[in-house]
Amino acid sequence: MKTYSIALLPGDGVGKPVTEAAWDVLQAVAKASDFALEGTTFPWSCEFYKQTGAMMPADGIETLRRFDAILLGAVGWPAEVPDSVSLHGLLLPIRKAFAQYANIRPHRLLTGVSGPLKSDDFDVLCIRENTEGEYSGAGGRVHQGTADEVAIETSIFTRKGVERILRFGFEQARVRRGKLASVTKSNAQKHTMVFWDEITRELAAEYPDVEVASYHIDAMAARMVMAPETLDVVVASNLFGDILTDLGAAIQGGLGFAASANINPDRSAPSMFEPVHGSAPDIAHLGIANPIAAIWSGAMMLAHLGESDAAARIMVAIEATTKAGIGAIPGRDKTETIAKAVLERLL
Amino acid sequence: MKTYSIALLPGDGVGKPVTEAAWDVLQAVAKASDFALEGTTFPWSCEFYKQTGAMMPADGIETLRRFDAILLGAVGWPAEVPDSVSLHGLLLPIRKAFAQYANIRPHRLLTGVSGPLKSDDFDVLCIRENTEGEYSGAGGRVHQGTADEVAIETSIFTRKGVERILRFGFEQARVRRGKLASVTKSNAQKHTMVFWDEITRELAAEYPDVEVASYHIDAMAARMVMAPETLDVVVASNLFGDILTDLGAAIQGGLGFAASANINPDRSAPSMFEPVHGSAPDIAHLGIANPIAAIWSGAMMLAHLGESDAAARIMVAIEATTKAGIGAIPGRDKTETIAKAVLERLL
Ligand SMILES: CC(C)[C@H](C(=O)O)[C@@H](O)C(=O)O
Ligand SMILES: CC(C)[C@H](C(=O)O)[C@@H](O)C(=O)O
Repeated sequence: MKTYSIALLPGDGVGKPVTEAAWDVLQAVAKASDFALEGTTFPWSCEFYKQTGAMMPADGIETLRRFDAILLGAVGWPAEVPDSVSLHGLLLPIRKAFAQYANIRPHRLLTGVSGPLKSDDFDVLCIRENTEGEYSGAGGRVHQGTADEVAIETSIFTRKGVERILRFGFEQARVRRGKLASVTKSNAQKHTMVFWDEITRELAAEYPDVEVASYHIDAMAARMVMAPETLDVVVASNLFGDILTDLGAAIQGGLGFAASANINPDRSAPSMFEPVHGSAPDIAHLGIANPIAAIWSGAMMLAHLGESDAAARIMVAIEATTKAGIGAIPGRDKTETIAKAVLERLL
Repeated sequence: MKTYSIALLPGDGVGKPVTEAAWDVLQAVAKASDFALEGTTFPWSCEFYKQTGAMMPADGIETLRRFDAILLGAVGWPAEVPDSVSLHGLLLPIRKAFAQYANIRPHRLLTGVSGPLKSDDFDVLCIRENTEGEYSGAGGRVHQGTADEVAIETSIFTRKGVERILRFGFEQARVRRGKLASVTKSNAQKHTMVFWDEITRELAAEYPDVEVASYHIDAMAARMVMAPETLDVVVASNLFGDILTDLGAAIQGGLGFAASANINPDRSAPSMFEPVHGSAPDIAHLGIANPIAAIWSGAMMLAHLGESDAAARIMVAIEATTKAGIGAIPGRDKTETIAKAVLERLL
């Protein structure tokens, strides 16, 4: 029997219960299929940081590299550990070290879920560049603490980085509704964004079957709420993708429904699957975190591993659950209730 | 009688008819008040560029400096003149040359206007930094056209620039509902955005009467659609403000309703007033551009000049117009019909 080894990183706060829920569902679907999932849990988190002084051991990346995939909950506990430590010590280094350059975030309204828009015609796949761009970390400050202080931050875009994410987007558009929207701000950022637009035009010539359009990030944010039905695949830089996917999550009813995959398309290292939501320290003790985003992320993991049937079965069970009204209203049902409802609906 | 000299820059496309409509309303309200408006029209536009090779004459900035205020329509005709020429040759230089560092954009649903959200509880004032940050223009490219090509773009934030826009935001919050939301992305951009957060905290100590909260741009974009009623004044960098105000425009029913003021709060140079929408070359010949955003921007100009009563009268007339259903539905009514309806309702 095929066995996949999965690194489980529940992380902090609500990351733990939602990862547990996702893992239960994954195990159940594996049991009913012809593959096995072997999980190894790593307690890397802000708690771990407070005990050891690091978010993960020095050989953390090497340890993770052996796995077929990583399932992450959420990290961060800003009141106790600065984001600069928690995120830059775990989440962001993993995305970069494993060249998980394609961050895929599916946004659609599940049956039974009511979003904030009047329209419920919403099915957008966001592809976010995940390793460079505005998150490069380059920059610094001078004259600190004085009236003359200046801070700079440099975005770095490489042809390799832009080309591969756009290509990934074109391929996705091909197997969806054939439409690709590329997002920049080339009317104000003349170096990096004009560069991105040029590469988009070059690649468009290679994909005559894909209808491609370029939008500025401001216009795209407006379009997401005014005419979301006109969008299919949306590809954007690290920062712009971050913004659009939180907006997408909001439109699909909230972060409790927003799944994501950090994909290394070359399969030279493991990919990582995580709900878009954070660790939500403020509600962590209430037991009401919606595990649907984490379970959906788990389904994306199975699809990536090649177990598409099992992935599809999970999606059917999720949708049957929300259709029955369970987990459909943010904050109403317990994490366990929702997880149990999904498990019961796994055919 | 007090006379204000106004520079009119209708610009391109729909910029022309909406500026004309706004000017008619401004003249009418002036006539009924105790001040006069003297307009001088400058044909600076893409048309002008095609004839002269520049978007404005070399002494354009010096010419504008003599005026009490500038009323702009919209510039740009991307199919014929690249944005890098049209915007960087007129709009952006004016904002910078006149230290119009506060870009104010009021977002609320006018009576009779139906937005895309189910909720209609929406009244947010966005304050966007308008002279530095992500629009600094610093950057470049190496190994152009090769597989090794790299493009960089540097955001530059100064203490002076950040402090003054935040201070402006605090002052606005004071005279509104007392709440300020500061927007950054300090969990991923460690230099500039952490800097901004620090200055926010410093200033917060000076404004104990203002309730201040910091949000990441992704979370703020989500909040704008999920819980807009929790927001009062939102202050953000050039780029983040740009994104949030297009989103705000969408939520208030479309760009036809989104007004803006580029304010030089020190009054060392003229301020500029313009609708948020662009020149819309695709619909420019149809005669259906909504002039409400331009008229509202004109009202903001009067308020800035100290004519608050006249400004308020225009706002009442705008709202009576949309309440009557005129100009309330994007693309339905003619520019002239809407302008005439506002004029008729000027008490
Ligand atoms: C926590 C933060 C750094 C992260 C990001 O912006 O990448 C998160 O917002 C996300 O979208 O995964
Ligand atoms: C045209 C463009 C450069 C401009 C901007 O981003 O500043 C516009 O989008 C705006 O919001 O005024």
